[in-house]
Amino acid sequence: MYRTHTCGELRLANAGQTVTLAGWVQRVRKMGSLNFIDLRDRYGITQLVADEHSAEVNALVEKLGREYVIAATGVVAERQSKNNKIATGDIEIKLTDVKVLNAAVVPPFTIEDNTDGGEEIRAQYRYLDLRRGPLKRAIELRHKMAHEVRNHLSNIGFLEIETPYLIKSTPEGARDFVVPSRMNPGEFYALPQSPQTFKQLLMVAGYDKYFQIVRCFRDEDLRADRQPEFTQIDCEMSFVEREDVIQTFEGLAKHLFKSVLGKEFTEAFPRMSYADAMEYYGSDKPDIRFDMKMNTVTDMLQGNGFSVFDEAEYIGAIVVKGCAGYTRKQLDEITEWVKRPQVGAKGLVYIKLNADGIKSSIDKFYTAEQLKVVADKIGAAEGDLILILSGAKKKMQGALGTLRLEMGNRLGLRDNNVFAPLWVCDFPLLEWDDETQRFYAMHHPFTSPKPEDMDKFFSNKKEDLEQVNANAYDFVLNGTEVGGGSIRIHDSKVQERMFEVLGFSKEDADYRFGFIINAFKYGAPPHGGLAFGFDRFCSLFGGQETIRDFIAFPKNNMGRDVMLDAPSRIDNAQMDELFLVSTAKTEE
Amino acid sequence: MYRTHTCGELRLANAGQTVTLAGWVQRVRKMGSLNFIDLRDRYGITQLVADEHSAEVNALVEKLGREYVIAATGVVAERQSKNNKIATGDIEIKLTDVKVLNAAVVPPFTIEDNTDGGEEIRAQYRYLDLRRGPLKRAIELRHKMAHEVRNHLSNIGFLEIETPYLIKSTPEGARDFVVPSRMNPGEFYALPQSPQTFKQLLMVAGYDKYFQIVRCFRDEDLRADRQPEFTQIDCEMSFVEREDVIQTFEGLAKHLFKSVLGKEFTEAFPRMSYADAMEYYGSDKPDIRFDMKMNTVTDMLQGNGFSVFDEAEYIGAIVVKGCAGYTRKQLDEITEWVKRPQVGAKGLVYIKLNADGIKSSIDKFYTAEQLKVVADKIGAAEGDLILILSGAKKKMQGALGTLRLEMGNRLGLRDNNVFAPLWVCDFPLLEWDDETQRFYAMHHPFTSPKPEDMDKFFSNKKEDLEQVNANAYDFVLNGTEVGGGSIRIHDSKVQERMFEVLGFSKEDADYRFGFIINAFKYGAPPHGGLAFGFDRFCSLFGGQETIRDFIAFPKNNMGRDVMLDAPSRIDNAQMDELFLVSTAKTEE
Repeated sequence: MYRTHTCGELRLANAGQTVTLAGWVQRVRKMGSLNFIDLRDRYGITQLVADEHSAEVNALVEKLGREYVIAATGVVAERQSKNNKIATGDIEIKLTDVKVLNAAVVPPFTIEDNTDGGEEIRAQYRYLDLRRGPLKRAIELRHKMAHEVRNHLSNIGFLEIETPYLIKSTPEGARDFVVPSRMNPGEFYALPQSPQTFKQLLMVAGYDKYFQIVRCFRDEDLRADRQPEFTQIDCEMSFVEREDVIQTFEGLAKHLFKSVLGKEFTEAFPRMSYADAMEYYGSDKPDIRFDMKMNTVTDMLQGNGFSVFDEAEYIGAIVVKGCAGYTRKQLDEITEWVKRPQVGAKGLVYIKLNADGIKSSIDKFYTAEQLKVVADKIGAAEGDLILILSGAKKKMQGALGTLRLEMGNRLGLRDNNVFAPLWVCDFPLLEWDDETQRFYAMHHPFTSPKPEDMDKFFSNKKEDLEQVNANAYDFVLNGTEVGGGSIRIHDSKVQERMFEVLGFSKEDADYRFGFIINAFKYGAPPHGGLAFGFDRFCSLFGGQETIRDFIAFPKNNMGRDVMLDAPSRIDNAQMDELFLVSTAKTEE
Repeated sequence: MYRTHTCGELRLANAGQTVTLAGWVQRVRKMGSLNFIDLRDRYGITQLVADEHSAEVNALVEKLGREYVIAATGVVAERQSKNNKIATGDIEIKLTDVKVLNAAVVPPFTIEDNTDGGEEIRAQYRYLDLRRGPLKRAIELRHKMAHEVRNHLSNIGFLEIETPYLIKSTPEGARDFVVPSRMNPGEFYALPQSPQTFKQLLMVAGYDKYFQIVRCFRDEDLRADRQPEFTQIDCEMSFVEREDVIQTFEGLAKHLFKSVLGKEFTEAFPRMSYADAMEYYGSDKPDIRFDMKMNTVTDMLQGNGFSVFDEAEYIGAIVVKGCAGYTRKQLDEITEWVKRPQVGAKGLVYIKLNADGIKSSIDKFYTAEQLKVVADKIGAAEGDLILILSGAKKKMQGALGTLRLEMGNRLGLRDNNVFAPLWVCDFPLLEWDDETQRFYAMHHPFTSPKPEDMDKFFSNKKEDLEQVNANAYDFVLNGTEVGGGSIRIHDSKVQERMFEVLGFSKEDADYRFGFIINAFKYGAPPHGGLAFGFDRFCSLFGGQETIRDFIAFPKNNMGRDVMLDAPSRIDNAQMDELFLVSTAKTEE
């Protein structure tokens, strides 16, 4: 062992001990005849000092550069000027010996919490970026999260069971990554988008409480903060109903809040129907850290000759507390903001409830009294600002929901250290797609209809099918969908009906899902489960918007690992062995 | 919840309680007016009884078939005739209600510990095979092993860090599985053969104790009991020497023996050099559950005119205790066995130390006195049998090692409930390949030479290079290599020398490993680690020879998942998107 202690553990009580530390040189500074080194490892920073009595050591220290790896031996001593910002700040090591274990060329950016390196250079030198405090804390948090998930679920009887990564391509939903098989010419494995079918087979096999922290793969056109490979906490239980699943994983979430963040949730997490979520938050993943619910004011505001409103399918309003004083400029800016294509509103109507009266952008059409009635109905009081969007219902609910979040941001109501979990339930089972003229499963084709909607599910009327709710639930945290699941179909007749509704021919369904349809004939128990997006869960716990810092070696928005320079071309011999020819143009 | 209790938990103390169990019907049998059901779930079997008072229940029970899924309600009662083979054998449930949760068609083989199903049908219906006791215990053991690995390593400061599965192809050693990239036409990711380079980058990044239970992929021509995807316990540490790594993972192994099997190892595990392993066991992974060491008797037996011996490079003998009484037939059989091509000996010489004198197959050339001298020297006593092979040294050492294992099998000396761990050290760093006229790394190209051999490593003489030992170690359990690792090269000059010795041009090395050569310039700490083959580790702990039962969904010897029927053909549209054309002949 090259060290006796880490750089994070020495205290005043160790004074007088001779120790050896090993780590990276964070900084060397000269003060008079003294040379100070900040030595860093995973556990902290310890100050080393070479004094005038050790010319040899001093000479060596002066040759050290940033990020050199050294082993330093000396005696622990109380510091003159203590540093209460670090745990080892009461002591320093009076050096008697220094060994350079490895030199280092100057890193392309500073290894500090606030670095001077841009995103690209840091991605290329990820192993250096990972030395910085924020990433180290993210990776440590992720370890702790995973470990607590496993402890909690194991303690309550779950088995972690590994499922295969080389599986069969079943193109439904996102694209599969595929893997050519050399031993089976012309054939391909697929990488799993999730272990969905395997966990259901495990239920058929009798493993009534399964989980796995597992990698999943989706070959999607990448959006910001999407990764082609990502990690799920995948769970499934048998002999359960929806309430059992929700209780079990609410228990897991509470355990994580407590053991990882020290936050105790004593009450049940709130629940909300999909319909309410859309009506009051314009989103299926409401951020309930702040109130500012949406109000439908269509009836209240129509019929006054303001054609924009009169022609609108929907008029919605939010009450922004205490913001009646917003200036023209501020309101113009918000108006421009809602008109951006990402939000998609045509314009914005405001009502300011000033102390000296009501002021609105629709004064021409409504009297102050009329607006006061509306304000009263939606709970707005003096000093508040009402913002109103109108238009097509679905689109404007979404836009108003987005505006609500933006106002939450502007008012600092979305504190990343505040956690507001929520279950959203009662989703529609099916979504009709006009383009392809077929239904798609809103979750996936194994989600059970709610028992009370089973008749409608077997109806041939599109209107009936549209009304069928799924026995599904999403776990939402701070406006982000972190988990989702459902009670599954365990009756092979219901499963076959589902494939029929989704427009798969019997042959097609058999080809793609034959093994699971078949498995269900051999005694499938009632079952259900859920999966958490682990990368996202970690980033929320870490108080960050982006998941990239919580993945040790992430890919960029083109799905590339810029550190490895992957993907890359492969040898022709390798292509030949796989019976493949590429039609891509070679770049010369 | 469909149940109040599991099928494994009710005891006499529960008598009188009304309970509901859910599970699979193992068996229904009628005795007079009574119907008995054995109901099975993951936790055990409970007997249910429908008596003459409940005609309705009886009628229902008589319709049940094997593997039906039911929920059964009744009162816990003491059994008349207790069954002490099962934990619930003192009680039965007097049924008041039975609900069929799902019917089942008759399974294609019996769901019993000893099934009537052949290997192929069980693979096809893996979800049914997984219901059987032996597989359930294997999967549960695997869960427990993984959980204890994580607990132990986390407790001593290791972080589990996930590394990517979509990486860069670096063809050295086994073939990579590759994944075409749609977003980067003509380019491919590779699936990792191990996270070797990533764990070394994590050391450069300062994460001084890393582990991961991780899937690895190798596109090899499959041998029996090889899987194209397999799981490793992958570990790495910084600022350590060989002894630190061995101590750390010996600690892990001891923890697993204790926590999983209740076996306590208080002494240090034995260690052996590669040279000794080859000389005394004819194998780099000796099974030391039994002694029967090999003896080199070349000098003792040459020069007596027996040309087979006189012309042999090597003569080796094992002493089989107490087997002097072997018959001619038995000896002939063993002789045939060693002549099989898998063993490769030309013949077998025996010496029987009978009470009434020495009898051997070389009586013509050696007197009893001469043979007695040899017997004494190699520790054979009256009643023992000596078996001798001769020929080319390397080959015959291997053959004699194989014979030793076979004799151990025949004598019942290889009890799967006895565990004999062993560290094998001091492997040669390099292996010369005559065909390609180059050196190959015996472990992998990141393994450090032993410090004392560094001069030879920089020598240009083949003889010097052949003598360089690796700073490596294997963990062997019961004659199986379960783990292997090494102290790595952390000096970029040594790493560059290694690539040079392996015959990579600088450009080639840069193209394949440039990122890690480069990373080492930025302050790489001394580091080393090891990886355990987790599937194999589990199977040995489970006392089984084959790993397949310890993998929930394994592949067959052609790399196929016969349950899924994967790999399979993919749509032409999918091929087009990937810029690929297959040259494999289509089967019509």
